[in-house]
Amino acid sequence: MTINLKNFLNFNKKPSKMGDFQELKQIEGLQISAVSAGLYSNGRDDLSLFYFPEGANYAVAYTQNSIVSESITWNRKNTKNNIKALVVNTKNANTFTGEQGLNSLDEIAKTLVESLKKFENENEYEKTKMKDILFASTGVIGEKFPVEKIKKNIPNLVSNIRVNQNKLIWLKMATAIMTTDTKPKVAYSEIKLGDKKIRIAGVAKGSGMIAPNLATMFSFIFTDADISSVVLNKYLNKVLANTFNAITVDSDTSTNDMVTIFATKKIKNKKLNTISSKEALKFEKALRNVCTDLSKQIVVDGEGAKKFITVKIINSETVEKAKKIAFSIANSPLIKTAVAGEDPNWGRILMGIGKSGEKIDPKKIVIKLGEFTVAENGKISESYNEEKLQEYMKWDSILIEVDLKQGPEQYECYTCDFTHDYIDINAHYRRS
Amino acid sequence: MTINLKNFLNFNKKPSKMGDFQELKQIEGLQISAVSAGLYSNGRDDLSLFYFPEGANYAVAYTQNSIVSESITWNRKNTKNNIKALVVNTKNANTFTGEQGLNSLDEIAKTLVESLKKFENENEYEKTKMKDILFASTGVIGEKFPVEKIKKNIPNLVSNIRVNQNKLIWLKMATAIMTTDTKPKVAYSEIKLGDKKIRIAGVAKGSGMIAPNLATMFSFIFTDADISSVVLNKYLNKVLANTFNAITVDSDTSTNDMVTIFATKKIKNKKLNTISSKEALKFEKALRNVCTDLSKQIVVDGEGAKKFITVKIINSETVEKAKKIAFSIANSPLIKTAVAGEDPNWGRILMGIGKSGEKIDPKKIVIKLGEFTVAENGKISESYNEEKLQEYMKWDSILIEVDLKQGPEQYECYTCDFTHDYIDINAHYRRS
Repeated sequence: MTINLKNFLNFNKKPSKMGDFQELKQIEGLQISAVSAGLYSNGRDDLSLFYFPEGANYAVAYTQNSIVSESITWNRKNTKNNIKALVVNTKNANTFTGEQGLNSLDEIAKTLVESLKKFENENEYEKTKMKDILFASTGVIGEKFPVEKIKKNIPNLVSNIRVNQNKLIWLKMATAIMTTDTKPKVAYSEIKLGDKKIRIAGVAKGSGMIAPNLATMFSFIFTDADISSVVLNKYLNKVLANTFNAITVDSDTSTNDMVTIFATKKIKNKKLNTISSKEALKFEKALRNVCTDLSKQIVVDGEGAKKFITVKIINSETVEKAKKIAFSIANSPLIKTAVAGEDPNWGRILMGIGKSGEKIDPKKIVIKLGEFTVAENGKISESYNEEKLQEYMKWDSILIEVDLKQGPEQYECYTCDFTHDYIDINAHYRRS
Repeated sequence: MTINLKNFLNFNKKPSKMGDFQELKQIEGLQISAVSAGLYSNGRDDLSLFYFPEGANYAVAYTQNSIVSESITWNRKNTKNNIKALVVNTKNANTFTGEQGLNSLDEIAKTLVESLKKFENENEYEKTKMKDILFASTGVIGEKFPVEKIKKNIPNLVSNIRVNQNKLIWLKMATAIMTTDTKPKVAYSEIKLGDKKIRIAGVAKGSGMIAPNLATMFSFIFTDADISSVVLNKYLNKVLANTFNAITVDSDTSTNDMVTIFATKKIKNKKLNTISSKEALKFEKALRNVCTDLSKQIVVDGEGAKKFITVKIINSETVEKAKKIAFSIANSPLIKTAVAGEDPNWGRILMGIGKSGEKIDPKKIVIKLGEFTVAENGKISESYNEEKLQEYMKWDSILIEVDLKQGPEQYECYTCDFTHDYIDINAHYRRS
């Protein structure tokens, strides 16, 4: 992985030094824990708990795949308004595990409720009930869910709960939820709502949409702000389209994808009742920054990725049209291999535009690579300079821009190149 | 390329000896020619002519890409009922070439009409007019169309017209239309309609949907039967869905794809006025065999392909649903890399089914690899045998079968695996 994080928002600048992890801070009203339950044999953390002593409002978005993990089925069974705990396991996706998988979650929930009792008594926290628990699972599908290992380690998970977070604790949590990821993914933002400072911290995992057997994109976001579940849900849906739903590594969709945002209500900020007030837009922007940052980190960590690609469609009649064309380009193996080969092969971009099936005017469109116009007026640009383009294609972050000249809308999505390493990782995954 | 052609229709048998090219015979009423016009610098044949001295009925299907070659634009300009000549060039796709590309075809057509005059006079053939000519171009897009080189070589093309075809002549023609293909593609069938024997011969090119810059699937099919253009069109549309439209190498669609069938009317067979008579179904079956054979040869020659994959969806409510699920699997890079790695990774097949967005019942579906059931009843099959499956995955031709248990319909499509060679060919194509 050689992509430079700082370069993300700077398509037209040459790569500078590698970006460091952000400094994540304490979210009041959240306590966390991660232990090894022996799901992996090497002793790494593989079982995590995000615990809300006084409960949290929340919103969640699940995978669009019509086959889903039993953990998602379990979460959907109860409509929950107040969450006390999120339990995350790796190594096993709890998908295509049938009754055994679903019953396992009942057993684990029971064990967790039981284990928390003493801790909650001592601290005078409200008691956690089974229906206050959410699950998230990622790993191999179709294998028996390791309920006994997890149950056995729940007391250990509870006794390791930490009240406070700092940067290292956040990185530990982000690492505990990883599968084939090569690095943890964290993002952070803080803003003032009225005179109150509120914080947003997020962790994510995902690398390809797939690993280990096929797997999963998770993003868990936490804020200490006081925002209702209904309003959180509106923000999440607004932000998803241009962040987690705007990334593609290989066009495949996991059975386990899950993005959640939790609000612990500890900061008594000005109420965000509408989502169009000035304060509300400020929060939306901060949430969008955290989600954009995490999304891009997932793409950068795409299996075998060596380059980050932004596909930007401008001056479209509708956002939907721009989006369809953007993904037609971003999902094209031909374009992704050309970028891997540092070849400014704009003919393939043209193919990608046309293959979307959307009506465009070939005589009007302008195709740019970075700041270089490669095609316009229905033919190759008169300023086309192969040498400069080949130089540009060596950069770590490539911008493909298509101007449709049809309207006021635009859409931008993110992907990575297609390399030998992608083939290696995915051809031999189960055996490695 | 190690795929065994004989093994195509024999998924469950181990590969046997390599199949040989079919023995193609003379199609009366067709004359052919191929020369080097210096489009490639190495002197290979790159300009071809299929000539019908007494004209031919025809039907054609073009690419679904919304950006198309100027050659397709030219063909569409006149509604032609009687074709005298098809001119095929390689090396340049005549796409995104603007006015220069379109005007070039006028000039070439004029030159061809002129060059044919003497030949047609001598043989007392009807004169070819400009509107009797079809063009097909494949190669790099966006480069100036080499009109001068082609015009200069039209007289040579005409003086090399051969009245008779045999297997070697057919292979010469199939080779002259190649770009990155590693071998020519030919297919042949003959049947009796009433008491008359009729013949169907076809050539095709394509390897990826892409090469050289992005390129093209061509298939040109010829019969000596007497069938009207209207009826030919009905057959072509019926057969396309399960042949040329049932193959995918990398999910990309060229700007130049073109499938045509020509009938020279030389054999005075029983008229096929309906397309559901016994004779008509016989012809449809023979045409389907030729198209299926050519389609599979294109997949086998897929860029970097080492394995042929058949995806078969059975017991679906509708054909459309089966087709959507089949392509969701066949276009998945994760499944294609797993097959390249000889890994019986059925979890990814499950992901592919779900990602189609189609409603299925996870508890009902049965997934098979070859004759081995890998998943059923919502979980891994009790007969699952990793050792046997790993043995099966070593074969050159792999069958993925999904039984939806929802209805009477089915759909089958064909693809190949995703290997290092695909990346190599496509990352560096323009520079090689």
